[in-house]
Order: sequence, then C-alpha cells, then structure tokens
Amino acid sequence: MSGHVPTVPAPTPLLEPDLLAADPEGIVEVGRLVSELTSEAAKALRRRGGPLPPLTPVELAHVVDAQLPEGPLPREGGGRDAVLALARAYASYTVDLADPRAAAHLQPPALGVATATDVLASAFNASVDTWDSGPIAVELESRLVRALTALAGYGPRADGVLTPGGTASNLQALLIARDTALRAQRDIRGEGLAGLATRPVVYCSELAHFSVARACAVLGLGEDAVRPVPADAHRRMTAEALELALAERTEEELPIAVVATAGTTDYGSIDPLPELAAVAERHGVRLHVDAAYGGGALFSDRLRPLLAGIEAADSITIDLHKTAWQPAAASVLLVRDAADLTASTGLRVAYLNPDDDGAAGYDGLLGHSLATTRRADALKVVATFLALGQRGVGAMLEACHDLATFAAEAIAARPRLRLTATPVLTTVVFRYVPEHGTSGGTGEGPADAARADAINGALRRRLLLQGRALIGRTDDVAEDATGGRVRLKLTLLNPQATRDDIQELLTAVEVAGRAVETEELP
Amino acid sequence: MSGHVPTVPAPTPLLEPDLLAADPEGIVEVGRLVSELTSEAAKALRRRGGPLPPLTPVELAHVVDAQLPEGPLPREGGGRDAVLALARAYASYTVDLADPRAAAHLQPPALGVATATDVLASAFNASVDTWDSGPIAVELESRLVRALTALAGYGPRADGVLTPGGTASNLQALLIARDTALRAQRDIRGEGLAGLATRPVVYCSELAHFSVARACAVLGLGEDAVRPVPADAHRRMTAEALELALAERTEEELPIAVVATAGTTDYGSIDPLPELAAVAERHGVRLHVDAAYGGGALFSDRLRPLLAGIEAADSITIDLHKTAWQPAAASVLLVRDAADLTASTGLRVAYLNPDDDGAAGYDGLLGHSLATTRRADALKVVATFLALGQRGVGAMLEACHDLATFAAEAIAARPRLRLTATPVLTTVVFRYVPEHGTSGGTGEGPADAARADAINGALRRRLLLQGRALIGRTDDVAEDATGGRVRLKLTLLNPQATRDDIQELLTAVEVAGRAVETEELP
Repeated sequence: MSGHVPTVPAPTPLLEPDLLAADPEGIVEVGRLVSELTSEAAKALRRRGGPLPPLTPVELAHVVDAQLPEGPLPREGGGRDAVLALARAYASYTVDLADPRAAAHLQPPALGVATATDVLASAFNASVDTWDSGPIAVELESRLVRALTALAGYGPRADGVLTPGGTASNLQALLIARDTALRAQRDIRGEGLAGLATRPVVYCSELAHFSVARACAVLGLGEDAVRPVPADAHRRMTAEALELALAERTEEELPIAVVATAGTTDYGSIDPLPELAAVAERHGVRLHVDAAYGGGALFSDRLRPLLAGIEAADSITIDLHKTAWQPAAASVLLVRDAADLTASTGLRVAYLNPDDDGAAGYDGLLGHSLATTRRADALKVVATFLALGQRGVGAMLEACHDLATFAAEAIAARPRLRLTATPVLTTVVFRYVPEHGTSGGTGEGPADAARADAINGALRRRLLLQGRALIGRTDDVAEDATGGRVRLKLTLLNPQATRDDIQELLTAVEVAGRAVETEELP
Repeated sequence: MSGHVPTVPAPTPLLEPDLLAADPEGIVEVGRLVSELTSEAAKALRRRGGPLPPLTPVELAHVVDAQLPEGPLPREGGGRDAVLALARAYASYTVDLADPRAAAHLQPPALGVATATDVLASAFNASVDTWDSGPIAVELESRLVRALTALAGYGPRADGVLTPGGTASNLQALLIARDTALRAQRDIRGEGLAGLATRPVVYCSELAHFSVARACAVLGLGEDAVRPVPADAHRRMTAEALELALAERTEEELPIAVVATAGTTDYGSIDPLPELAAVAERHGVRLHVDAAYGGGALFSDRLRPLLAGIEAADSITIDLHKTAWQPAAASVLLVRDAADLTASTGLRVAYLNPDDDGAAGYDGLLGHSLATTRRADALKVVATFLALGQRGVGAMLEACHDLATFAAEAIAARPRLRLTATPVLTTVVFRYVPEHGTSGGTGEGPADAARADAINGALRRRLLLQGRALIGRTDDVAEDATGGRVRLKLTLLNPQATRDDIQELLTAVEVAGRAVETEELP
C-alpha cells in the first residue's frame, strides 16, 4: 500500500539509567540481563582455543583500545549494547580457568552455585559492618565463621572474620600478634611503635608466603623483622630449625609470632604443626597458621589428617577462594580467642554502632574487621555448602590431589622433564631439562644453569603467547646439581581435568622447550 | 494398563557437584540459576513491608537457625532446592536499599547493570595481580584508574589502584605518607619504626573518618598520632585551624600527612581543598584527600565545583560503591605520582611476576596493591559507565542532592524536628525535639539533654523494629543549647525516592518520637 509508513525495528532497549537491582522489577531485569550476558559469554567461550588469548600484552592493549574508543568513562552512555559488547570482549580475553589446560596459579575455576548466588550479595548490597546495613548477612557470616572454627577444632571462645584475601588475613593475624605481644609494654594501639626499644620479630619458613613480610612492612615492624627459617628437604620448617632460629635472637629482639605454613604456594608442603606449636608455646610466642592454600583439606576426610594439630594455633588463615572453589574473595581469619581479635579492631562509632544500640542487640561485625563497608561474601560460601555439602567440596580437592599425584608420575616418566618435589596437595613443581648444554660444556655448571633457567622461563612465555596452555613458574629454594633455579609448576585446581589433559600439558611443555632451544636460545 | 510402572515426577535436578561457572555449558547454567534466584528474590521482595525485616536481632537469629538446621557447613548437600530456599530467606531478611524509606548509611542501592556484569567477574574469577591470571581484567583496571586520575585533574605521572573499601584506600594512602616522610631517615619498609626517635603525626579534621585513626594504629603510628583539628561552623577544617595545629607541634613530632575530607560521613561537608593544599605545601607535608563520599561529584557538572582544588592532593580516596552506585566493593586510591605507590608496595615475586616476564611485558598489578589475589572489580564499574555515561551517574547524584535540599526544608518546617546543618551532598542531620522536658525542668539542661538523646536513639530503634523506615543516627560534634548530642540522619542515595517518600519518613520519625515519649521514656 502506497504511503505506508515503513516499519522500523524497535531499537534495542536502553538500560534505564537508574535501574536499581533490588527493586522487585529491577531484580527480575538483572536476571534477564545476566542471561543475555552469560549467553554472549558462552558464545565467546566456544570460539576460544585455550585458556589465554593468543596475544602479546601489547596486542591485547590494542584490542581493549578498540573496545573503549572513548575510554572507560565516556560522557554519554551506550546502554545495553555497550554492556553486551564488553561482556563478549571480557569472555574472549580473560583467562579461562575452566579450561583444563589452565594450571598456573592458586586461582580455581569458580563454582557455578557460588557465582550465581553472589548476584544476590551484589543486588542487595548488604554490608556486614552494622546490623541494619545487612541483618541476615551479619547472621550468615557469624555462623559460617563459627562453623569453620569448630571444623578447625577450636572451642567456644573462638571467632573469626572474612577478609578480602589471604594477604589481608595474614596482615590482621600479625596485627593481633604485634598488639598482643607489646600490650604489656605499652598501649600499642594508641601509642604505636615509635621509641620502642625492643625489636619485634616474626619467625616463619623461608618458604612462607611473601605476605608475611608485606604485613611486617605495613605494621611498622619492617620486612627485616622476618626471620626466615631454612626449610628441610621436604620444604617444611622443622621444630629443630625453629628452635635454632629462636636461640639466635639478640637481647633486644622480641619474638611476636611464629607463622607456620599449611600449604606452601609452590610445593603445598605443610609445616609440622604439633611440633611447631610446642616450640611456640615453650617460648611464649603466638602461633599463626597460614593455611590459605591447605585449609580446604578440612572438608575432606582423606586429606584432613594433613592439618592435624592446627587447633593449637592462635589464629588460622583459610582462603575459601582457593580450595573451596569460591570466586574471589572469600578469605577467613579464625582466632582461638575472640578477645584477641577485638582487642585490635574492636570499635564503637557513633554513626554505626553506638553503645545503646549495641546494648539493645543491634550489632554488626565492624569491630571484627579492618574494613568498614564489607560485602556479604558469606552468602556464596553458605550457598555452596548447602548445595554440595562438605563432602562435595572435599571430593573436588581429592580429585585435584589425585591428579597431582598422577602428574608427578607422568613427569618422572618423561626424560626431558625432572620432578622437583613430590606433591603434597595439588601443585607439581618440575623443570624442563635442555637437550644439550652450552656449546662445549658438560651440561652442568653456571653457564648451563643460566641457560636452563632462561629456557624454562621462555618456554612458559611461549605457551602463554600460543594461548593453548597456561602453566606456572617459580624459583626453587636452591639450585640442584644440574641446573638453575627456575622451575615450572602445575597448580591443579580443576577437578574435571583428566589424565589426558595432564599428558597434553606436559607434551606442550616439551614441544615448547625444544622450540625455544632451537629457535630462541640455541 | 495393568502392570504399568507408575510415572514418578522427575526429581529437582541437583546441581552438579563440580559445575564450573566458566565452562560454556556452566555459564549458561549460571544464567539459568540466576534467573531462578532473582525470580525467587522478586517474590520475596513483593511480600516485604519495608526496608528491614520487622524482627529483633534475636528473632532474626531464630529464623536463620530454622533455615540452617545442620548449620552452614552440612556434611551432605541439598542441591538446587537448598540454594533457592537460602535465596528466599536472604531476600526476605536483608536490608532493602531500593526501598525509598531506607536512608541510613552511605550504602547505595546497587545499579542493575553493575550487579549483572559483576557475574562475569565471579564466573571467570580473574585476578589482577598477574597478567596471566586476568589479562583483560588488568587492562580494564589500569584504564579505569587512569581515566579517574584524569578526571581528578592529575597529570600523566598519576596512577592508582582499586581497593576493598575507603578504609583500605585511606590505609594505603597513609602507608605511602609514612614511608615517604620517613624514607630520608631510614629504610622504613625494611627496618620499620622501632627505635625511631621522631613521632610521626597526622593532621585531619575532628570530623574525619575513623579510618584515619584506624590506619594509624595498623601502621604502628598509634591512634594518638592523629591530631584532630577543630572544625568550623560549617563542619570544615579551615586553613587557619590547620596552621594553628601545626604550630603546636613539639620538636620530636614529624607531620607525615594532612588528611582533608571531601564529604564528611555525617554532614557531607568538604574541607577547603585549595587552602589546605597551600598549608600542606608550605609545611612540606603530604596531602591526602578522603573523597570516599564526595568523589562521585566528579561525574556531575553541577556538583564538581565542590571538589575544586582536589588535583593538588598527593593522593585521593574515592568510593565508587558509594556515589557511583556500585555494589561493594569498588574503592579507588589515586596517587599523583606513581612512584609513591610502588615505593611502598612494588614487588617482584618469583612465582607471580619474575623480572624476565616483566621485561617481556607480562605484568599485572601486584606491585600496586596491598592485596595479592584481587577480583576484577573494574569490570562492573566500566560496564556501568559504558551503559550510563558519566552524565547518567552524575544525574543520580544530582537527584539525591536535590532530595537532600528538599528534606532540609521539610525538616525546618516541622516544629518537632530541628535541622542540625545545611546539607552539602546527600545527607541531612537533624533531631527530634521532645514535646516536653523532664518533669519540672525548663526543657534545657543536662537532664533534658540526656533524655532527648535517649529518645532520639530509642525512636530510631523503634523504627528499625517496625521495619518500615530505616534512618541513620550519629552524634553531633558539640551539644547545642537545647539538647544532647545524638542526632538523626537521612543518607539519601536512592535517586528514585520522591518528596512524598521524604515526608513519609519524617512523619514516621515524629510518630515514633511521640510514641517513645509516651510509652518508653515518659
């Protein structure tokens, strides 16, 4: 019909500028938008060839430039289309931890149930600092923390708090240790450290996480306050070595903490907790156990014995965003005595938790934490355990442990790979042994060691650039007879990965090593 | 047909114990589960009568007990049904910030677009500490932070980092200030503070956030290191008052920072930034601006002039989970000179960012942050601005500012309410004036003041318990002529709230005040 107005497709609806997630209509719309975003992400995932985008950092930067022509804070918004485009780019160029060839870091593929439930934490934006900023969120965190204290073997005086990461948990643990040790000398919280004649020191394995030193720097103790104790052949700090280190202290040094590690980052090695607890007690020093990595063993009947004696610690760090498959962050600091916690962070503030509100029972978790606003991270954790049970989560760790054991055997069977240490939890450290030494060399010696290091570093980057295999690297504590210190590492946290996936990864390492030897560092 | 096997309804499918969010199938399932969870939440929201559950804390605890018969860590999982039940409970018993009668804390209703996009941050679980733990996440955070530095008026040497909250941003700012000021005297990061003869001190308004004192305690300076400067009648720290405070310092005191506040928590008052910057510069002291609350004004043409001079600060805290309507957490610390940041937190670690990887361009943000694992919080922020633009976010702040101005007028017009201060941003502080004084009293004097305080505190709890209105409370800096120090507060962060909603809230305050006077504290 002539004169008819042509039909125009309806424009993609823009997001309402002020759509709020917690409106009854808003939250339904959030559900719809998540469906669109996840289905875009699924398409992007299916197009991917591996766990990393096969791009150099510079190439990726150009991709992101193109994605953000007006930068990340444009003056005018582009509505839903702009968000969907961002989602596609994000899913294409993030690391894909669910790819079984991703095996680099203590960064698990997140569980679907935790990911989905966490949406409600964002949508309602509760904060656990005061009761009325998140009533049920406060209840859930309190209960979760107390259930974890019971699982760790603590008694009824125990308490704890969720933190943004293991580094933050260790910081708070050492803050408590600092304040507890110095309280006899001065009002440490009020007066600080200036003018202090004693020198507070902290003992830990040379393989303890760097967050111990970092915490000492933040707390004004200085990184030099760390007294690294040599590890034994099994990469553990023994009671004897700790005793020796304590015996060496000078008169002005005041030991404020022993930090034992239950799961070193690279080797998964677990310091002998009961023996170290006895030494710490004998010297009247507080014991903190950094079980950021190993803490997940509490959920497994088979692996829990590795943590025997952990209940003797004064405080414990556990990262549920490591071995409980939570999206970051979900770290927890447990303390054997709640009073230790509140002595350092207890707080009453007129605008948050005044005395009369506290007396009437309206109290949040402000005094437990170094943070003020604090997200309801307990929700996703509780949802995970309600869905899967401890048994389900523990089974995931057991599957990864089995995989690590298998990987160690597979490495031992390959002549160009050499296993550095027997796996304890889910990491496997090894190295690629170059086919030949420096020209004219014996294959052993400084030049060969440096070359072997360079080859191992370069082969990992080669795999990164190809995007098809993502493995970790680290330095070993000491050189071995034949090579340098650079090591390769599989951190196995994907319970769906198979033995074939492991073999594929190891073959990729060998192929990349040979290519580096031929093409880059002949 | 006889002998036919009866049909049994298919059981509710359990969640696969190891469903991973980042599988192509997993992420689609996450979308589906989010749809179910949000639709359950919507139903629960529609049944609610107000922003809080109408329960005492003890009653709520019983509800949660019933919800978790085997506690939060049951041995066996209950699958999808258990998660849906938890979602219903959570939506029923959380605070509902999208309810226009929620007006207590600096805790905004979260934007739908940020909430939805954040799912991808959880699903892929990228971490920004190393390049290969989150390539595009690292790029997005870097760009977001740099765009914010430009918006704040910083030059090309500026940088910054996302943190878990304003308290953490202020901590890191003061860590940098401590280390910068003391570096001339010693290797502060290595040696710490013990034995230091000088006493580091920090100057800030008496109305500065308590996180300044908390940071001083953590950093080993002690809470007493804070030199609170009296605020003027407009609740601001003036240059004159700061000069006076600086003049009073003793010989062993070393000023390490002036902290100016751009948006005090209660009053929204903004210290005169250019004048304070001049004083700080004259004394050679670092200036940090805590714009946790006020920083959102950068997105509004109309309100940005309030922050004039902020570019003179050495560092700035901005909480995007306050005045950019992000779900927590999305705080940012900006620094004028990137070198200041890395001097305190720069780090190379063998297993994360060894030198040769850094040289090859594979570098993350580990050295920017006090955290190690760190979630891709920039994603939701960038999505928000791509969708709404600065103009959209700025308009939300303007709407709330308009509402605060209206609320102040409405309070002034009500005889039983008295306005404490003219609003600057989006908070309104006032009090309820009891109808009569203590028996036989004049209505003014210590007994009346105490009674007025008790009534104001009790009326707020009465509103909490009814669940239909959630307002804030605080103490004023000083008593006024007629009453005590307890004040009521509206923190207006819901841009959809109307003038009628404000009037309804104020009427609820009056009714509760009268009821408390009659029934509780006659």
